[in-house]
Amino acid sequence: MLAEGNGVLFKADAIAETFRAEIKAELSSAPRVPKIVGILATSAAPSKFYSDFTKKQCDALGVEFVLKKTGQAADESLAPGEGVEEAIIEANEDETVDGIMVYYPIFGLQQDHYLQQIVSPFKDVEGLHFKFHYNLYHNIRFLKPNALVSALPTASSSDAPPAVNDEPPAGYVKSILPCTPLAIVKCLEYIGVYNKLLPYGDRAYGKTITVINRSEVVGRPLAALLANDGARVFSVDIDSIQEYTKRPRQPGVPESAQRKYHPRHVVHPAAQSLQEALALSDVVVSAVPSKEYKVKTAWLKDGCVCLNVAADKNFEADVREKASLYLPTIGKVTIMMLLRNL
Amino acid sequence: MLAEGNGVLFKADAIAETFRAEIKAELSSAPRVPKIVGILATSAAPSKFYSDFTKKQCDALGVEFVLKKTGQAADESLAPGEGVEEAIIEANEDETVDGIMVYYPIFGLQQDHYLQQIVSPFKDVEGLHFKFHYNLYHNIRFLKPNALVSALPTASSSDAPPAVNDEPPAGYVKSILPCTPLAIVKCLEYIGVYNKLLPYGDRAYGKTITVINRSEVVGRPLAALLANDGARVFSVDIDSIQEYTKRPRQPGVPESAQRKYHPRHVVHPAAQSLQEALALSDVVVSAVPSKEYKVKTAWLKDGCVCLNVAADKNFEADVREKASLYLPTIGKVTIMMLLRNL
Repeated sequence: MLAEGNGVLFKADAIAETFRAEIKAELSSAPRVPKIVGILATSAAPSKFYSDFTKKQCDALGVEFVLKKTGQAADESLAPGEGVEEAIIEANEDETVDGIMVYYPIFGLQQDHYLQQIVSPFKDVEGLHFKFHYNLYHNIRFLKPNALVSALPTASSSDAPPAVNDEPPAGYVKSILPCTPLAIVKCLEYIGVYNKLLPYGDRAYGKTITVINRSEVVGRPLAALLANDGARVFSVDIDSIQEYTKRPRQPGVPESAQRKYHPRHVVHPAAQSLQEALALSDVVVSAVPSKEYKVKTAWLKDGCVCLNVAADKNFEADVREKASLYLPTIGKVTIMMLLRNL
Repeated sequence: MLAEGNGVLFKADAIAETFRAEIKAELSSAPRVPKIVGILATSAAPSKFYSDFTKKQCDALGVEFVLKKTGQAADESLAPGEGVEEAIIEANEDETVDGIMVYYPIFGLQQDHYLQQIVSPFKDVEGLHFKFHYNLYHNIRFLKPNALVSALPTASSSDAPPAVNDEPPAGYVKSILPCTPLAIVKCLEYIGVYNKLLPYGDRAYGKTITVINRSEVVGRPLAALLANDGARVFSVDIDSIQEYTKRPRQPGVPESAQRKYHPRHVVHPAAQSLQEALALSDVVVSAVPSKEYKVKTAWLKDGCVCLNVAADKNFEADVREKASLYLPTIGKVTIMMLLRNL
């Protein structure tokens, strides 16, 4: 077997480029140069790398990027994360700051999740505040600007206007989507997994997609987004496989016992194993933060599309023996989404 | 060595009793019977047990308790947690509901944390909304009622009135404290670890306390509360030991290099190992969700006070060989705090 197969190795640069032009046009008509504060609180190499990368992308686009180092990042003798909450509060209160970006992980899942709520939703370019997740899970795409002010989750989905295209109706603004899941959707749009001939909000209909990872930052919001857009999604984590879908699931089951077509996704345990899910999947997205984890090429459906979203390579070297298209990294698109959210 | 030592085995019933009387008095002057909705979404035995226990306590006090079963708890063929978010939203919107209690764990740390933000802060009797944690970590004890409405963390600590006693100044209300940490503090007050002769807000001064667990639900808020009240706290988790304190830490370090006395706690890595921390500790609180985990009796300081907050016993059978006082469980006090928050 060849170390490299016949599928296309597709770099995300071209996708990022389409957004770069759009963002440049927006910036040229902005009243002033927007400012992002990046908060780096650990000496972890990936966080350092990512902050350098953000700065480079901001510089290239003419966005002001100020890196605020705190804790271990400022002084090796300090603990990771020391001062990070204070740095966030300062940036929340600083009227010259438009966007805040915090380089996680810092403390661990729970305490990091707390910090994500402390960032003002008005400056949360990463889309990590629970209100944005709430909207995403409820397929609420647009909201009134003042809905952001309330501590309660925003309007119930019945109050939200239906989305007929990307543009919010008068009096509404878009709800921010978390950067990484949004970048993945934009990649899938670009490479044709989303079909523009289908109605808006259902453009992934007919596609089966496996998402390996169910974190609140990447996997679960992504599965919900894709299912809200009509796809059948297998959401895989270490403990379980779930199916996210808007459509009735069981052929052969009497109509009365079927789940109805939903305005947003429903979740239920999948009958399939990972091997069975992969055999059905047109697209496989993997975001497992582990050097060891590899999706078995042998299990992939011939001609599928594979996206690696992890810092490590989650696919085997011969993935293109099966995959028609392989995107090894989407980091540049993620940064563009962040600047777009800004 | 005896299987049971000489220390006192202290049951928390008497502590719960003092609050029961206070709550009864409050209820008798309430305009109507308050209503709590308990949401049970899994078939896990501890959650079932805890929901029965809540109901019993509510019945005894004349509080209306309605158990809403969803997901696996309603139907074994459903997934754990199915419908739980919808049940929370329904209770948020139901004006006859005063308090909401959700029986965790359901999905896992991240998704459960998301659910905790979905519960309206006006009905969050458990005190799990990030706004309450923010106030606690910032030692903000009182807030204006309308501060709860905002999605932003409330006033910075400089805006909050200083707490001179338990009563909020005019125009302010108490910030809800998470139930379990608050119950632990109330136990420590009752058994004399807190000293009422000391000024309010510094009544644990002089006490060294080890807290084993650093979750966002129990360990970290507890360590912060105790340190805000003047104690020196060792916060222990599987990866690290931290010290929480309001006071300068290093005797012998020049004044200029010392951390100053803070209005709220600061956190830094502890120089001590667990064994060294325990040797210094007047109080040991353990909340490790594991049958296997045991605090070594041999490491305890003679005459210390031990509180077990876990469902499993985290102390060895001979803990009273060293401990002067051992509280094996505080569940009844926790429930009283919940009703008090209501």
